[in-house]
Amino acid sequence: MKKPVLFACATLLAALPLSAQEKEKKEFPAPGEIVAAAKTEEWVAIAPSDLLVMELAPLNAKPRRVVIQLMPPPFSQGWIGNIRKLAAAKWWDGTSVNRVQDNYVVQWGDATEKKALPEGLAVVPEGEYSARFALGLIPWQWVSGMRQPPVTVLSSRHGNLYLEAPNVGDPYGYAYSFAGDFPVSLSRTESLNGTERTITLDRIWPVHCYGMVGVGRNLSPDTGSGAELYTVIGHAPRHLDRNIALVGRVIEGIEHLSSLPRGTGALGFYEKEEERVPILSVRMGNDVKDAPAFEYLSTESASFAAYADARANRRDAFFIRPAGGADICNIPVPVRRKAR
Amino acid sequence: MKKPVLFACATLLAALPLSAQEKEKKEFPAPGEIVAAAKTEEWVAIAPSDLLVMELAPLNAKPRRVVIQLMPPPFSQGWIGNIRKLAAAKWWDGTSVNRVQDNYVVQWGDATEKKALPEGLAVVPEGEYSARFALGLIPWQWVSGMRQPPVTVLSSRHGNLYLEAPNVGDPYGYAYSFAGDFPVSLSRTESLNGTERTITLDRIWPVHCYGMVGVGRNLSPDTGSGAELYTVIGHAPRHLDRNIALVGRVIEGIEHLSSLPRGTGALGFYEKEEERVPILSVRMGNDVKDAPAFEYLSTESASFAAYADARANRRDAFFIRPAGGADICNIPVPVRRKAR
Repeated sequence: MKKPVLFACATLLAALPLSAQEKEKKEFPAPGEIVAAAKTEEWVAIAPSDLLVMELAPLNAKPRRVVIQLMPPPFSQGWIGNIRKLAAAKWWDGTSVNRVQDNYVVQWGDATEKKALPEGLAVVPEGEYSARFALGLIPWQWVSGMRQPPVTVLSSRHGNLYLEAPNVGDPYGYAYSFAGDFPVSLSRTESLNGTERTITLDRIWPVHCYGMVGVGRNLSPDTGSGAELYTVIGHAPRHLDRNIALVGRVIEGIEHLSSLPRGTGALGFYEKEEERVPILSVRMGNDVKDAPAFEYLSTESASFAAYADARANRRDAFFIRPAGGADICNIPVPVRRKAR
Repeated sequence: MKKPVLFACATLLAALPLSAQEKEKKEFPAPGEIVAAAKTEEWVAIAPSDLLVMELAPLNAKPRRVVIQLMPPPFSQGWIGNIRKLAAAKWWDGTSVNRVQDNYVVQWGDATEKKALPEGLAVVPEGEYSARFALGLIPWQWVSGMRQPPVTVLSSRHGNLYLEAPNVGDPYGYAYSFAGDFPVSLSRTESLNGTERTITLDRIWPVHCYGMVGVGRNLSPDTGSGAELYTVIGHAPRHLDRNIALVGRVIEGIEHLSSLPRGTGALGFYEKEEERVPILSVRMGNDVKDAPAFEYLSTESASFAAYADARANRRDAFFIRPAGGADICNIPVPVRRKAR
């Protein structure tokens, strides 16, 4: 069946004469083709102990499993420690998805707000919304999605990276990059030696891209415990960056959350108890017998750099004009199930 | 009920002591509060003849109506003319929603692809994906969401705007603004007079924000007829800008599309006929008896400028750190039903 669709490279190429098809693929592979061709050693295994597996009540007798990858240090570890305790205590079992706001978030937790929390949860300060920048946190050979960015690396010493550059492409920060497979933004400090303006990367924080998971909170100075979680199901609400804790991202099953009926109450809360979606269980991946294994494409790999370039400069069959740039949330780090 | 939620200003302010509440509101109103306080004369009526009203088959006996506002000249008028003809011919009646791809698009049209198109549809060239910039198309006192942007307006003559500025905030173009209530991006040409670099705004085009409606097509040079339409239900796929025609945006009822079950076929197409969502009718707003009237907040108004500033610099009760910027898709132009 012919499919008149946008972004249809994959299917439409199959309809082209083989020679043209091969030519397109060789010259300008699509991002998905670059990922499919990545070497085995360019993929990084995700530890099951860093996965949070949420089972929603089945829909039409079909199970609904959502898999969340928690962030690595130095990001949000206070809240993530709480989340590990809550999962170990089976605290979410019997809670529910209570809020679905279109083009914004899906939120879950204890709708009654009467359920006692486990002992010993940390109270995490607002300072933890970002971390101190350190070399090795990002693939700093390129920043803001560019392999040769308009960034002059002056030097790197004492774990600092000294740059000379204009803003390199993130309206919500100085520049963007990736920490492992998580999108991050960076701030900088400036110093003047004589006439030479030097920029030092200062703070680094995770950003609110589609599928990122965060911690609901009340008004400042409250930072939330981690018992009330949300995930982004619309355009990246980047104004929330550094205003609320991000702890991970959904790597499988987000459609079970993003396709839920929107709540009709204020902020998209469900108004009737029967609208809420029951959560059967939430467990760490290493406590789930049949949990699949996952891996992500290393953001330090040549294939990822080519993939990011291709996302910012589409030249595969469907496209007539490359954008010449991309915002970080349009360069999702590829994740796949790992063959056992 | 206490609601530990992100972005809960509206409800949580109500729980604060009145004095503090009033103080917050006076000093740093939330974007929604700025819009609610806008003067009647700052709102612009949307002509019913520019609305496309799509009725999906009811769900649980509840009607599902989606209202789309078509773009004004000079944007995409060839395709929009075709869409008016298709609606007049009742061409979409009995077609269906056939594709729902998570974090991407919902697409509708004739799944069989055998239905004959009306006579006299235009074949629109790719050049129409953007328009020539002209003064009056945008509220050019501010660009890229800033009232006093880092833009030096050198002069404006012969309908051109001459600027001196660095890139002002859109990774997918030179700058962004709004045409009526539609998000647009701008390109520029440079000229050098002696040592003075002058930038002239050149082309202007609509961008793929959440809820924007576009025209499915096959490989270039095909540009689509307008019979196959899609809307964005995820993070803005800006790489599609200038690669495919945008014709409007959903102003009411997008939840009827964004919450549909995701398709399990390639590109999110439904694999079984029974999965498709029947379209009962698509009519122009002036042909629908009970169609509500709508109005949008003028992007030339003081209230809109304040709203855009507030979106980029949240200082209302929930926020501890303003972002200092916003991408265009995080500044959706407010639309509301017009009191009759």
